Amino acid sequence: MLLHDLLGIELPIVQAPMAGVQGSALAIAVSNAGALGSLPCAMLTSDTLRAELSEIRLKTSKPFNVNFFCHTPPEPNAERERAWRASLDPYYKEFAIDPATIPQGPGRAPFDQTAADLLSHFKPPVVSFHFGLPSSDLLAHIHSWGAKILSSATTVEEAIWLEAHGADIVIAQGLEAGGHRGTFVAEALTSQLGTIALVPQMVRAIRLPVIAAGGIAGARGVAAVMKLGAVGAQIGTAYLLCPEATTSAIHRAALKSDTAHHTALTNVFSGRPARGIVNRFMRERGPLNDSVPAFPLAASAVAPIRAKAEALGSGDFSPLWAGQNVTGCKEIPAAELTRELGSLSKGMRGANRSGNN
Amino acid sequence: MLLHDLLGIELPIVQAPMAGVQGSALAIAVSNAGALGSLPCAMLTSDTLRAELSEIRLKTSKPFNVNFFCHTPPEPNAERERAWRASLDPYYKEFAIDPATIPQGPGRAPFDQTAADLLSHFKPPVVSFHFGLPSSDLLAHIHSWGAKILSSATTVEEAIWLEAHGADIVIAQGLEAGGHRGTFVAEALTSQLGTIALVPQMVRAIRLPVIAAGGIAGARGVAAVMKLGAVGAQIGTAYLLCPEATTSAIHRAALKSDTAHHTALTNVFSGRPARGIVNRFMRERGPLNDSVPAFPLAASAVAPIRAKAEALGSGDFSPLWAGQNVTGCKEIPAAELTRELGSLSKGMRGANRSGNN
Repeated sequence: MLLHDLLGIELPIVQAPMAGVQGSALAIAVSNAGALGSLPCAMLTSDTLRAELSEIRLKTSKPFNVNFFCHTPPEPNAERERAWRASLDPYYKEFAIDPATIPQGPGRAPFDQTAADLLSHFKPPVVSFHFGLPSSDLLAHIHSWGAKILSSATTVEEAIWLEAHGADIVIAQGLEAGGHRGTFVAEALTSQLGTIALVPQMVRAIRLPVIAAGGIAGARGVAAVMKLGAVGAQIGTAYLLCPEATTSAIHRAALKSDTAHHTALTNVFSGRPARGIVNRFMRERGPLNDSVPAFPLAASAVAPIRAKAEALGSGDFSPLWAGQNVTGCKEIPAAELTRELGSLSKGMRGANRSGNN
Repeated sequence: MLLHDLLGIELPIVQAPMAGVQGSALAIAVSNAGALGSLPCAMLTSDTLRAELSEIRLKTSKPFNVNFFCHTPPEPNAERERAWRASLDPYYKEFAIDPATIPQGPGRAPFDQTAADLLSHFKPPVVSFHFGLPSSDLLAHIHSWGAKILSSATTVEEAIWLEAHGADIVIAQGLEAGGHRGTFVAEALTSQLGTIALVPQMVRAIRLPVIAAGGIAGARGVAAVMKLGAVGAQIGTAYLLCPEATTSAIHRAALKSDTAHHTALTNVFSGRPARGIVNRFMRERGPLNDSVPAFPLAASAVAPIRAKAEALGSGDFSPLWAGQNVTGCKEIPAAELTRELGSLSKGMRGANRSGNN
């Protein structure tokens, strides 16, 4: 099976959607270079989403992907929020922040009918989701314009669920991956598998094509996951230093420093586990903390601390998302990086699914 | 670079030494099939070690590996031991064990001059270590009969240390691997990388050849890690159901059950983190516990509970070591499994080290 036949792209590579560090510019550059560029939409207003989609349609005729979250929004829990903010009080004092001025949520909204209606005007050829899938009605709407639907699975169980609920391709997200775990069934972090263990088990368990993600930092990594039976690779971290990414100067400096070699899964920034470079906030309040508010509400309490710290040039309170291999990060145009990433795998087929794992 | 040229074996595969679940029979079968069989020696008396080495020399003329631990034995801590045993009191009551009858350690001894002298009579062509390396004098002794020295690294930093201290080949142990982490410098478990992230970074950082371990369950996995730049793969879990392994009936049953899909790193069985199938003891006292006695002393306190539980047919208190992909476990002779594992990689070279990672 070739990803080319499934998505109409030349290289078996998906640029991972990375909310907060990229917009349409990166997606356009990657799509024009022959891979699948992605627009992270989870944090965009309708107006911005419309503008970004217009920009993409203007600047590329190649396939592209739009990515949304589809978590179930939590019930706000005032007591939990109060306790969490109280635990952050030393930071509010340190940075002279009045906690009474910090707004509650609302944070990131899940994919809904409004977003689907907006998308229907632009007919993106690929729509991907994180944290499961939206309702079957919404999926039918997306399928109505011929789009393919992708979603991430972090366990074999989640892959089987996605196959049964309308996904067209499953992204196997190994625990090396940067950013948020796509987990939506699994609870224990011990259920999360490394890419090399996850991909062949998923390929065995489902009929849908599998794209591998997590720890893939170069052309050899792409070729390796295709040996495991994947039809392609989703790569995020490697693009973070490209000029088309909007990665902050602080985040870029961290990626280029030795500290980038130590990442961890943390929930202190958003309420859900995500992989980032270990910094002061993760060391002092995490990396995992049982008392953090539910996703995405946890983002509010730390936001003003992060803003003050960043104004002082510090990433101590910023989510510095990164995967377990930053050696692929290069300060070169995304098109050039894309061609490098695909240099060993153009036209390569995923290993035969019936073979040994 | 070919593992064939380095070790004189036909297939680029090392059978991982697995103390407690195999002896010379598995090593002999694997070596005779063209890969590198390994004898785990950390828990053997001198007499048994001598007998096992005689057996190997009798039954194969092919290269083989002997594996030792080289940890620094801890100072016994009576207070820590007392507190740990007190925390296990409910189990002693449940299984009618008098804790006063439980002996202290001593547990596994590290590699020493006595072992080196014994080895010198048998001249094993490969000697591998876990938890670092022994002294340079001992390494010189081993090198004196022309043996190659291997050791495991779980981080790039550890690989650099091994290269500087006399190893000939480094095993990159990804966190998917079953059994004990070979960690000897890194402390935080967050420093432990998945195989797909670890191997290319290690290949970049050192000049020594790298063998990949962790999550490799079949021929495609072997081919994949060679795409990442490894010269071969070390595989353990897949051999656990072979008739030549001494894996207990309880351990075999667990490997064949659905529970085998959920492993975790735990320190409650030995005092050091090791990956095994999640069972009652890991759930109730771990998987990680800060108050456990230092390696290998922790093994004493749980030993009688494990023995009583196993007598009742239960693996609730047994270390059920396994990696993150048990789908490669097959109840077939080890020679057959070895040929299957090597079927896609015989004569294959590791990817060029100067290429993209």
